[in-house]
Amino acid sequence: MRIAELSTRTDTSVPTIKYYLREGLLFPGRRTSPNQAVYDESHVRRLRLIRALLDVGNLSVAATKSLLEQIDTPGLSAHSAMGKAQYALARDSERDRTHDEAWGRADEEVAALVDRHGWSVKNTNPSQAMLTDIVATLHRLGHEHLIDLLDVYADAAATVAQTEVARVGRTRNVDELAEGVIVATVVGDALFAALRRLAQEDVSRRMFGAEADRTHGESGP
Amino acid sequence: MRIAELSTRTDTSVPTIKYYLREGLLFPGRRTSPNQAVYDESHVRRLRLIRALLDVGNLSVAATKSLLEQIDTPGLSAHSAMGKAQYALARDSERDRTHDEAWGRADEEVAALVDRHGWSVKNTNPSQAMLTDIVATLHRLGHEHLIDLLDVYADAAATVAQTEVARVGRTRNVDELAEGVIVATVVGDALFAALRRLAQEDVSRRMFGAEADRTHGESGP
Repeated sequence: MRIAELSTRTDTSVPTIKYYLREGLLFPGRRTSPNQAVYDESHVRRLRLIRALLDVGNLSVAATKSLLEQIDTPGLSAHSAMGKAQYALARDSERDRTHDEAWGRADEEVAALVDRHGWSVKNTNPSQAMLTDIVATLHRLGHEHLIDLLDVYADAAATVAQTEVARVGRTRNVDELAEGVIVATVVGDALFAALRRLAQEDVSRRMFGAEADRTHGESGP
Repeated sequence: MRIAELSTRTDTSVPTIKYYLREGLLFPGRRTSPNQAVYDESHVRRLRLIRALLDVGNLSVAATKSLLEQIDTPGLSAHSAMGKAQYALARDSERDRTHDEAWGRADEEVAALVDRHGWSVKNTNPSQAMLTDIVATLHRLGHEHLIDLLDVYADAAATVAQTEVARVGRTRNVDELAEGVIVATVVGDALFAALRRLAQEDVSRRMFGAEADRTHGESGP
């Protein structure tokens, strides 16, 4: 198919497709003349994956490119694929770290939490640093109520992780497996966030009752 | 304090503070001369809140500004505050929606899920549209395994939402309550994501065993 059809099929504008080609996110089509190329189903699939990582996963172009390279590495193991996806997500959210008193406290609390739940994680896991940053932020803001709930969050996270790793692990084809793990890791964050917000609306309505329906912002009746 | 001290206290550069002042995110200090102003603890607190929403919550400057205006509205109810925070998060991730066959299927599946869990949510809740987009993306990619797990995610999300709404609801002061709800809604996403990734590493190591430690990406031994 021509680039115009690829654009329609994937709901992605032609300039955007050309940008992905230039950045090396999308592999080139087959040249039929010096300024024309044809594309096939593999391009449709790849474009959908690019959009999922960029739009749903909110990854940067650089992080998306690096994950696509991992997906293209033959025989990448599930555990490795997950590690790569986690690093891509973490690197995108990396920022300057303030090692103040709040951070020291958070660091101890997170280490105790990991211990309490018996999690075997390397202390170089970027998610642990990310979690410490978040807990430190909550201390600095004086919003300790979320910190009280760390164990509730951790139990729910463990249940979700247990089920999804087991489910993805059942994939037979090793190359599909790597892509599946990366999609699950990146898209799963957004999936859970959407569900949590829906559940929050329900709980909030039950808990705050009639007042809720009178005032629920812009959602209207 | 002078702007230099405010900068040190909050680990935010002077140009960045000036940018927040210009954008109206941070309220002005008390002028002591035409080009000098002094700041107090309320500015330290506000700057920390701005950084939490921008850096941890990954909100845009516009969404952060709109939430700060909500926090500054006296007597905002908890349910309203949550609605505003959810709208700010959703609006930031809004994108063109493709109403294809995958989207139609996703729309039915999400409606059935909400029904099955007995959630009372308005169908104008932006998180429902976001969830539908994500499920449609997974259909388009052919990664249906995460869709199989929607109920597991939904149960975990309900447990988390139940506990956090109850905990935040115990706050006495109505103005602190609004800020607490907004922080919980925005920062909670990142908190759960970090915990889920830590739990994933643990489960993946247990499930894939020795192979895991040999290949876990850049984390090293």
